[in-house]
Amino acid sequence: MNSPSRIGITMGDPSGIGPEIICKALRDCAGPERRSTVVFGNRAILERANDMVGAGLSFADEGESLGGEAVPIVDIPIPEGHGAVKDGAISAAGGACAYAYIAAAVTAALAGRISVIVTAPLNKAALHQAGYNFDGHTELLAHLTGAKSSFMLLASETLSTLHVSTHVSLAGAVHRASTERVLATIRQGHAHLRKLGLAKPRLAVAGLNPHSGEGGLFGREEIEQIIPAIEAARAEGMDVTGPVPGDTVFYRASRGEFDLVIAQYHDQGHIPTKLIAFDTTVNVSLGLPILRTSVDHGTAFDIAWRGVANHVNMQAAMAYARRLAAAQAA
Amino acid sequence: MNSPSRIGITMGDPSGIGPEIICKALRDCAGPERRSTVVFGNRAILERANDMVGAGLSFADEGESLGGEAVPIVDIPIPEGHGAVKDGAISAAGGACAYAYIAAAVTAALAGRISVIVTAPLNKAALHQAGYNFDGHTELLAHLTGAKSSFMLLASETLSTLHVSTHVSLAGAVHRASTERVLATIRQGHAHLRKLGLAKPRLAVAGLNPHSGEGGLFGREEIEQIIPAIEAARAEGMDVTGPVPGDTVFYRASRGEFDLVIAQYHDQGHIPTKLIAFDTTVNVSLGLPILRTSVDHGTAFDIAWRGVANHVNMQAAMAYARRLAAAQAA
Repeated sequence: MNSPSRIGITMGDPSGIGPEIICKALRDCAGPERRSTVVFGNRAILERANDMVGAGLSFADEGESLGGEAVPIVDIPIPEGHGAVKDGAISAAGGACAYAYIAAAVTAALAGRISVIVTAPLNKAALHQAGYNFDGHTELLAHLTGAKSSFMLLASETLSTLHVSTHVSLAGAVHRASTERVLATIRQGHAHLRKLGLAKPRLAVAGLNPHSGEGGLFGREEIEQIIPAIEAARAEGMDVTGPVPGDTVFYRASRGEFDLVIAQYHDQGHIPTKLIAFDTTVNVSLGLPILRTSVDHGTAFDIAWRGVANHVNMQAAMAYARRLAAAQAA
Repeated sequence: MNSPSRIGITMGDPSGIGPEIICKALRDCAGPERRSTVVFGNRAILERANDMVGAGLSFADEGESLGGEAVPIVDIPIPEGHGAVKDGAISAAGGACAYAYIAAAVTAALAGRISVIVTAPLNKAALHQAGYNFDGHTELLAHLTGAKSSFMLLASETLSTLHVSTHVSLAGAVHRASTERVLATIRQGHAHLRKLGLAKPRLAVAGLNPHSGEGGLFGREEIEQIIPAIEAARAEGMDVTGPVPGDTVFYRASRGEFDLVIAQYHDQGHIPTKLIAFDTTVNVSLGLPILRTSVDHGTAFDIAWRGVANHVNMQAAMAYARRLAAAQAA
């Protein structure tokens, strides 16, 4: 892998901690990694963040021939008609910026100029103020790429979980755990791990109900919905264990027994993963026509533009993106 | 606390690992603790387990004047009419024994001869074969003591969770999270920690839906059911934070911010607690007229009567029972 593919980072809402954690993370990169990371953001704002944290970076337009250590950027002006961007505060302008960076990065990804997008956080309320009524990055990316559905993977060193459903009520999640959706989730997880180089990924599927329903006593979704999906996946040749009760499957996976756990709903997967690896859990979107990783935290307006934001999660998101980019190129 | 109250241990299903883990745990006790622990079981079976693991214990009937190091026991014959007990296998006789030990211990607890019951595991199928159609220990104890409801606390050194509901389907759990039940759970947890000596327990209540419903977008149970319960508890003077989203509340509690988390359903509390402290998590029943702790594992028929069962969880259950007994006596 002498020339790894480029990855792109979207700067997120400029009022948040995105600019400063990007500068800190790029400061800590090796030179070749820095030169192969394109930032989709605003040059003046990035330079201000660079000065604030003393990262010592230089920036050059993506198209230019890059001198030495310069970070390639796609410089996007602050969209007009939304007022000013304010440090550490919700604004329509901040939401409009975040949208513009993502739109530009998606265009670049679909054109093959970058192979993976890493997203810094945006603020949903700011996005809405700017007139973009999406629930978050994932919905926005699905819209921009025309994807019908996507799957949220939370990845860490010790535990990775892929979710059958995410941003729906718990009552709604029970209904989402259909045979079709569980099977689609298993297939996505299996394909993802194969792409990352695992010849025979070991998947486990969590039960939905306590004790996986205890033979139908505490709910019949395992019998009627989940077990048929597991059997179908096995028939396709996949190594799938389950349903395994929630209170043992994550423990077993964290000790190395499984490569990935299919979680039936948001909290089932988020609780154990964030408990084990709060700072280093990366959010990865599967099922879109583009590849995307993300930090697993928000804009943190309360501490933004003071130079104190921790960039370890951004580093983890970038590292996972590079792994994906290398796998794409292989 | 020069004379801590006695605790009682029920031997559980004799075919399982109960007898051997009890002998190992008693072997590792200090003398005064051993003399103040009454075993409700069968003397011949206990002596066989004692020989197998080389614990070197001696036993004496509870009523006898105890010589030196002897462990007081209540010797209960194998109930007739259920056939034989078999090592490592489900049997009606095993279920009948487990029932008889618990019934005797409850009688002793209600009479004040012991202050806390520690239960070794029983097998539900064996219990049913013997004609006792209870879902488990908790239901059986509620029946024997005439209690209307109980609450499951999972306690470990770093994280403790009390459950609004446990052995119901996930769909059923959504409905169980009523204002009345959430408030009753908060009150139980608060009273328990006060009993254990915390002057001002810090409680957190987990949200039911992802992101605690995100202002009603992902479910309205927080707004309509859970927040009113939290406000009522605060009005009663309790220190209650929440609702806090599931994917951060356990992390925050594990770092010392809260003394107890109120979990809305079985897996929400079991997943993080068992992930953090798989071997040392103790199951405590609150809301019964008696106090009871339990190991948090099953009969393990597959490894029973080979002397290899790990007794660390039994030690943790006994330690918590002693803490409760001392608090009762104080």
